[in-house]
Amino acid sequence: MKRVAVLGSTGSIGKNALLVVENLGKEFTPIALSCFRNVELLSQQALQFRPKVVVLVNQEHLPFLKEKLKGTGINILTGKEGLCEIAEMKEVDLLLNGIMGSAGFPPTLAAIRKGKRVALANKETLVSYGQIIMEETIKNKAEIIPVDSEHSAIFQCLNGREKANVKKIMLTSSGGPFRNRKDLSNVTIKETLNHPVWRMGKKISVDSATMMNKALEIIEAHFLFGIPQEKISVVIHPECIIHSAVEFVDGTIIAQLSNPDMTLPIQYALTYPERRPSITKTLDLTEISTLTFESVVPTRFPAVSLAYLALKKGGTTTAVLNASNEFLVDAFLEQKISLDKITKIISEVIDKHSPIKEPSIEEIQEAEKWAKKEAEKYVLKK
Amino acid sequence: MKRVAVLGSTGSIGKNALLVVENLGKEFTPIALSCFRNVELLSQQALQFRPKVVVLVNQEHLPFLKEKLKGTGINILTGKEGLCEIAEMKEVDLLLNGIMGSAGFPPTLAAIRKGKRVALANKETLVSYGQIIMEETIKNKAEIIPVDSEHSAIFQCLNGREKANVKKIMLTSSGGPFRNRKDLSNVTIKETLNHPVWRMGKKISVDSATMMNKALEIIEAHFLFGIPQEKISVVIHPECIIHSAVEFVDGTIIAQLSNPDMTLPIQYALTYPERRPSITKTLDLTEISTLTFESVVPTRFPAVSLAYLALKKGGTTTAVLNASNEFLVDAFLEQKISLDKITKIISEVIDKHSPIKEPSIEEIQEAEKWAKKEAEKYVLKK
Repeated sequence: MKRVAVLGSTGSIGKNALLVVENLGKEFTPIALSCFRNVELLSQQALQFRPKVVVLVNQEHLPFLKEKLKGTGINILTGKEGLCEIAEMKEVDLLLNGIMGSAGFPPTLAAIRKGKRVALANKETLVSYGQIIMEETIKNKAEIIPVDSEHSAIFQCLNGREKANVKKIMLTSSGGPFRNRKDLSNVTIKETLNHPVWRMGKKISVDSATMMNKALEIIEAHFLFGIPQEKISVVIHPECIIHSAVEFVDGTIIAQLSNPDMTLPIQYALTYPERRPSITKTLDLTEISTLTFESVVPTRFPAVSLAYLALKKGGTTTAVLNASNEFLVDAFLEQKISLDKITKIISEVIDKHSPIKEPSIEEIQEAEKWAKKEAEKYVLKK
Repeated sequence: MKRVAVLGSTGSIGKNALLVVENLGKEFTPIALSCFRNVELLSQQALQFRPKVVVLVNQEHLPFLKEKLKGTGINILTGKEGLCEIAEMKEVDLLLNGIMGSAGFPPTLAAIRKGKRVALANKETLVSYGQIIMEETIKNKAEIIPVDSEHSAIFQCLNGREKANVKKIMLTSSGGPFRNRKDLSNVTIKETLNHPVWRMGKKISVDSATMMNKALEIIEAHFLFGIPQEKISVVIHPECIIHSAVEFVDGTIIAQLSNPDMTLPIQYALTYPERRPSITKTLDLTEISTLTFESVVPTRFPAVSLAYLALKKGGTTTAVLNASNEFLVDAFLEQKISLDKITKIISEVIDKHSPIKEPSIEEIQEAEKWAKKEAEKYVLKK
């Protein structure tokens, strides 16, 4: 039996992860759960799954949680330190990191330094700290198994094949809710959060709408698979059936397909290299009947170009891209800026940034702070 | 440098194989070539590639070949025995078997018994002698790498993955030239040989039109991958971009895609497990733009049902299916029967057959003879 810590258990990835763990029966047990502030759901989950420990990052509703878990023997930890504490616990065999944003980095690093497997749904960790994370993973003989559907697809298509034989990684993208809309200056928050295929959290839904999600994924793929940016491409595929593909030097493309369902990559990250029957509805290609593909038009989706630009500038630039995006997504959700401003401001911030090569953790954190401040200037200007 | 014997070098597979070998440069050399009777092309190929030996099966034009190769030092062998002789030659590292029909079996067996790699394009070998071939392959630590585009695709999708995790093998089919035609009783030979996607030999073009090709492939996949028939399905995919796919127990589908070009599976069978740049045009999904899928309607394509029936009856039945089909394709090309009769007569012959379980080579050969005779009765009756 493998003991799993589910970070962000009340979020979209976390809830799906608990469905997966439940489906897998005795093979996995959730030994630790964490959430930012949703104590109602966390207490429900804790009472159902009886983990050894739960972490509440924001302590505002701590009394409520204490009351709910009274007499259960479930240990309650708090704050961001709590996340690292469970990541390091010797009883945790595997960390599923479903935390949103750069807060996901410290527990990932902690688990890796203990040589554990991290099922990583937190793409910001790799975007900002990619080089450090991958070096530490090798050094500590740890494992990072991607949970993002695109990266899980690539991981499965590679299946241990030699990197030297890879010609191109092809990330697919639904194109988001505004694939066929030219002007993003007047879209509403409601429209933005209404993704055509995936039901996801707010941050990632906004990222899908701006295609910053795909920008983050390009950078994530670069670090995770050690593939140079010129070998990473994006194809618009509105049906979201081919989750990504790898082209080899001989012209062969190996692709991973399934119905869009996050439980599948989550489960694979847990059971890899094995597979188990899942709760995913079987894909019937004759029912889907048609798969379509379109090029990414850079002028329509500047986010994709920003990813290549950030990788080209290198060093702290990808962290700057990510941090300014995090800040600007909030600004959009707080109705301080229109959606189209997000990529425009990120572009300006990247342009101003003087990257530090091979940065330390502290230097990355400094760059993140700087990026948020810079982005804020543009928000206030407006 | 690997030394390749190309059997059937003047046929469609053989010509492509020589293009591949040429493209791969010094890594491979064609040390032996063979053809049935096309001495003009064989002598051209011999003068270009300078193999050590050539085999002419039908000796009618032997004097012409001798004249052409005079003074070259190229050895000329004749008859079917010649094929086995080169298959066994210690200078041959790898046998590419592009021979059509059950004549392909003896050299395949000979090469396998010497522990060699066989790049197998001759599907009839596995359809009729599947069990014997696979047992001998294991016993002699030989290798069979499929060259059929569908089986190469499956081989690449499996990529060493555990068979226990396979839920289904999905063979794709263009649907052939008559996918949208209801009545096959009055199609002409010219229409039949005009495949919408692939340029191939006559036999395989007729098999594509009747979908007997897919029937043979179902049986081939069963033996080659050791997968029970209920786990093999067929999907119509007119664009021929996904060459086949594997569904795993968790619901994941891994698919192999490329432009339809036989040089790709041929090259992979030579270079496996490595890959090399190929002469195949790179697939651009955004250029293709749409991939479509349809179910196989059994009443439209009875051939597919015949494959499952033959596997269910087992033993010599698959050889009977193949032999009667070989006979009936010739009868169609000689305008003795209409195209729709092929599957009808095969169905009758299979129905009459009393299969021998775990048959010897001789028993299979007897069953083949019997099947051709039975099929002939129906042709004469008509």
